Amino acid sequence: MTSPKTSPEATVKAATPTIGVFDSGFGGLTVLRVLIQRLPHARFAFLGDTARLPYGSKSRRTIARYAAQSAQFLVREQGAEFLVIACNTASALALDAIQEAALGVPVLGVIAPGATAARAASRTGDVLVIATEATVQSHAYAAACRAQGLRALEKACPLLVPLVEEGWTDHPVTAEVIRIYLEELTTEAAAAGLNPDTLVLGCTHYPLLRPLLERIIARAVPAGIRVIDSAEAAAEAALRLFGQRETEERSPAAQVRCFATDSVDKFERLGSRFLGRPVGKVELVDLGG
Amino acid sequence: MTSPKTSPEATVKAATPTIGVFDSGFGGLTVLRVLIQRLPHARFAFLGDTARLPYGSKSRRTIARYAAQSAQFLVREQGAEFLVIACNTASALALDAIQEAALGVPVLGVIAPGATAARAASRTGDVLVIATEATVQSHAYAAACRAQGLRALEKACPLLVPLVEEGWTDHPVTAEVIRIYLEELTTEAAAAGLNPDTLVLGCTHYPLLRPLLERIIARAVPAGIRVIDSAEAAAEAALRLFGQRETEERSPAAQVRCFATDSVDKFERLGSRFLGRPVGKVELVDLGG
Repeated sequence: MTSPKTSPEATVKAATPTIGVFDSGFGGLTVLRVLIQRLPHARFAFLGDTARLPYGSKSRRTIARYAAQSAQFLVREQGAEFLVIACNTASALALDAIQEAALGVPVLGVIAPGATAARAASRTGDVLVIATEATVQSHAYAAACRAQGLRALEKACPLLVPLVEEGWTDHPVTAEVIRIYLEELTTEAAAAGLNPDTLVLGCTHYPLLRPLLERIIARAVPAGIRVIDSAEAAAEAALRLFGQRETEERSPAAQVRCFATDSVDKFERLGSRFLGRPVGKVELVDLGG
Repeated sequence: MTSPKTSPEATVKAATPTIGVFDSGFGGLTVLRVLIQRLPHARFAFLGDTARLPYGSKSRRTIARYAAQSAQFLVREQGAEFLVIACNTASALALDAIQEAALGVPVLGVIAPGATAARAASRTGDVLVIATEATVQSHAYAAACRAQGLRALEKACPLLVPLVEEGWTDHPVTAEVIRIYLEELTTEAAAAGLNPDTLVLGCTHYPLLRPLLERIIARAVPAGIRVIDSAEAAAEAALRLFGQRETEERSPAAQVRCFATDSVDKFERLGSRFLGRPVGKVELVDLGG
């Protein structure tokens, strides 16, 4: 792979590829977390478009415009040579727009890896997907699952993101909300004649609810339902794409720069819970929104 | 009052003043609802900046930029001669920026009217305020209450807006969340030596929770706490400002145009619950974000 630039800086970058990771907020740090663990010698630029989050309740047109601007920042300003779209909503509604804006840089979303992981996990071929309203309305997971020979039932769970952001990741109220959503989902699945054995977490905030979710499932579903994390699946897919290069050309340690379009305070305060380590100094950028 | 324009159109407008009502989303329709009831012959232009909501979790700088653009749209494009900022967050953090952007048009926020109504209601002089994170962090209510000789304790309740938008306005989970928030608030009030008898709803989504809130308060607080709705208070204040003119120069019936910066579907679907009647056709506008 050749770098689009020929400056000395570009040569340095070519030796240690920069992976751009993008999310509407900081939920995508759960993807970055796995990427850093698995590619400890790469260079990462993470952008959270926090001035305009959440994408999950907005229209395709608006999401595409925001995501394209964000992708351009990572490619043009940060020299990213790969893009991981660590945002289910942007992956579902704007992958085309991002690819167009990314100036030839390879782009990986979270939807297809999530569906691939669901296929590997499911024996019955029927899967459940929980996600934001916009992701569900796009039916991107249903389409990606269908391409894998799976039947998928999707459900919007709009309260889960605010509950995670409130820090109630192990709280009776959150448990009750999850129970209600899961009950509605399994009732609907039964009515549709599905026999689901796999649940896909189609939002990068949801991995923080995974322990609680798995406890509730263990009590409510005797046959068990396996939980698939799209963030983890995307990071694994990225690893397969970038891993070969990584082992050949390694810098001393992962370099991570985090950018946000709004209030870096909240990002710095909450981000570490998603990244699993301090996010460090977050740099403010203006995408003109 | 003279119109800033001298075109024939401006003369027509001067006969029936246009009141611009602005919110980050459609919660501000609760303010518009009271305004229409009380000024049934005025002309209204409502703008919800839905492409960039919620403001409640964003920074002062970002909120000021968004709100100023929105105010300019109402004044320049819709010829608004008064502006009601039916958004607590924008009123708390961006009233100066809006006034500057409003080209001399009078601007009324919701904070000061809320504090004035709290003063009229409170006997002990101690009030509680629930609002979004950004409104609370600005301490705009505390300052406005202090100016009225009141002591105020503010609390961010970030789960209430998503619960209202999920439609769970009379739901056991919402009741439990309200109980938790109120318990934290009253415990904190007691620790601070306050004896509150008034609760200000400092977010335009909260009036939809008022019946549930009042039932919970009636059970939990024997002495009772009176609930003040800032939306209602702001509409009453607007009435005092504009009412005189309204009675003199009346058009046949209230004319309402609604604009949104994103997905008019959701606005049209959820808006009627806030407005108390169908919102009709919502027009999409692009503020360049």
